[in-house]
Amino acid sequence: MQEMESRVRGRESLIKLACLQFAPGVGRNDENRERSCALVAQAADAGARLCILPELSNSGYVFNRRDEALELAEEIPGSETVRAWEAIARERAVFIVAGAAEREGGTLYNSAVLVGPGGYIGTYRKMHLWYEEKLFFEPGNHGLPVFPTTIGRIGICICYDLWFPETVRLLALQGADVVCIPTNWVPVPGAKTEGPPMAIYLCMAAAHSNSVFVAAADRVGEERGQPFLGNSVVVGPDGWPIAGPAGPAADEILYAECNLVEARRAKSWSDLNDTLRDRRTDFYDITLGANVKPHAF
Amino acid sequence: MQEMESRVRGRESLIKLACLQFAPGVGRNDENRERSCALVAQAADAGARLCILPELSNSGYVFNRRDEALELAEEIPGSETVRAWEAIARERAVFIVAGAAEREGGTLYNSAVLVGPGGYIGTYRKMHLWYEEKLFFEPGNHGLPVFPTTIGRIGICICYDLWFPETVRLLALQGADVVCIPTNWVPVPGAKTEGPPMAIYLCMAAAHSNSVFVAAADRVGEERGQPFLGNSVVVGPDGWPIAGPAGPAADEILYAECNLVEARRAKSWSDLNDTLRDRRTDFYDITLGANVKPHAF
Repeated sequence: MQEMESRVRGRESLIKLACLQFAPGVGRNDENRERSCALVAQAADAGARLCILPELSNSGYVFNRRDEALELAEEIPGSETVRAWEAIARERAVFIVAGAAEREGGTLYNSAVLVGPGGYIGTYRKMHLWYEEKLFFEPGNHGLPVFPTTIGRIGICICYDLWFPETVRLLALQGADVVCIPTNWVPVPGAKTEGPPMAIYLCMAAAHSNSVFVAAADRVGEERGQPFLGNSVVVGPDGWPIAGPAGPAADEILYAECNLVEARRAKSWSDLNDTLRDRRTDFYDITLGANVKPHAF
Repeated sequence: MQEMESRVRGRESLIKLACLQFAPGVGRNDENRERSCALVAQAADAGARLCILPELSNSGYVFNRRDEALELAEEIPGSETVRAWEAIARERAVFIVAGAAEREGGTLYNSAVLVGPGGYIGTYRKMHLWYEEKLFFEPGNHGLPVFPTTIGRIGICICYDLWFPETVRLLALQGADVVCIPTNWVPVPGAKTEGPPMAIYLCMAAAHSNSVFVAAADRVGEERGQPFLGNSVVVGPDGWPIAGPAGPAADEILYAECNLVEARRAKSWSDLNDTLRDRRTDFYDITLGANVKPHAF
């Protein structure tokens, strides 16, 4: 009976989450800022409390030269785009996870910023750089932080990070309830022309194996010959999509009602199985960097 | 030109792999032995060089009592069933990976044996025990060995092991070309009544993230009220199925032509990306048990 009441109370923690799929333009920081804020406002009107924007939403993706990347990247916090996201987060009482090209002095990172109703919360810098990103960006040096917020514990990773099962595992081991993934998915080896891209299955496997929500906001469109895949998706802790995949080409806001804190209960599958505790840490474990503090479950 | 020639030579390493989906009966070790050997013979007739049999192919799965499990488990090597598998492997010049209940003195393991044309090669003991297996079996204490053979490097894991991304990662880091998965898949939380089970997506994600072949041989049928899912599958190093999923209910031999050694080349996605080398081992790494020797790539 006590358990039943507890589950009912848990259900009161439902929040609406929104993946804001759109097409940032390279070098069009002003337009990108306006468009991303308009989408956040639209999602907030629909009741969203957590909005996720694609990777590099401020600057676009395909840089031709290092100079161009340096010019388009912005300081975090403090830049015009991040201030605009902070302002709308305060005004509409939402949390926003948004990909942004970050400049720190002469150094560039492919980052994601988390802002909320109380302002700037933190930044994640992409750990695994994809292809020519390696020509412009430095690999992330902030580890894989998990941010406790009033709506639950938010973990962040970006695009190719998802290809490394260690990423979501390390976020889950730190207690993440939801892993937000700003992304710019592109075709990978073996990619099919029809059906969901492999990234969808990576989201499903990561959510299922770690019993966490996974919410991926992808971009659409083409930039300097590089096509992007859309297919934004929200996956529940059992690994099955609860919203999407979105279409491959058009702007789209994907909504999902999520009880983020239920990710904690979802790890217990029976009196004899628990998805994180069943790990054979007597035989293997993930050695953690200095920024990673294992969570007490 | 040299690269092109090399790729042509690589293609000569094609072998036919076969997942032998059937329904072992609990307590019917004699029948199970005959049936499994008949399936191996049938697959060998069709040209298979590597045959994979389901989890606990010698004994069946659902034990009622510890005594029953002790009675049905067999010593490895040396038992009647393992000797039969050795004999047919020699006779037909095939490799066989077969799940088997193993008894060592009074101790039980949920194991898989690898035999080949030259006889017994080795045993893997399931690391992650599912649900009531924990009541009868000891957790595996042999680590996650990879066996070099004349057809390529064979890694083995069993059923619930796949739910832990560390498993296939550790096999890939030791150089496995193919991960063979004897399994007895059952419905898990969130399971759908239609379409492929979540296990298929775990196979796809594991193969893709690690650029290895994954071949899962599941059982079918029902045993003491426990249904099994079939859906045996073979996935290529790009993560997409190359054979199956098989049906959910009937015996079936699933064949796939695989160039196992190509798993080594498949890790290089471009001049700037390699699926294993891109791991951020400066930030995280998997601490390995004494039996695990990282492979020099």
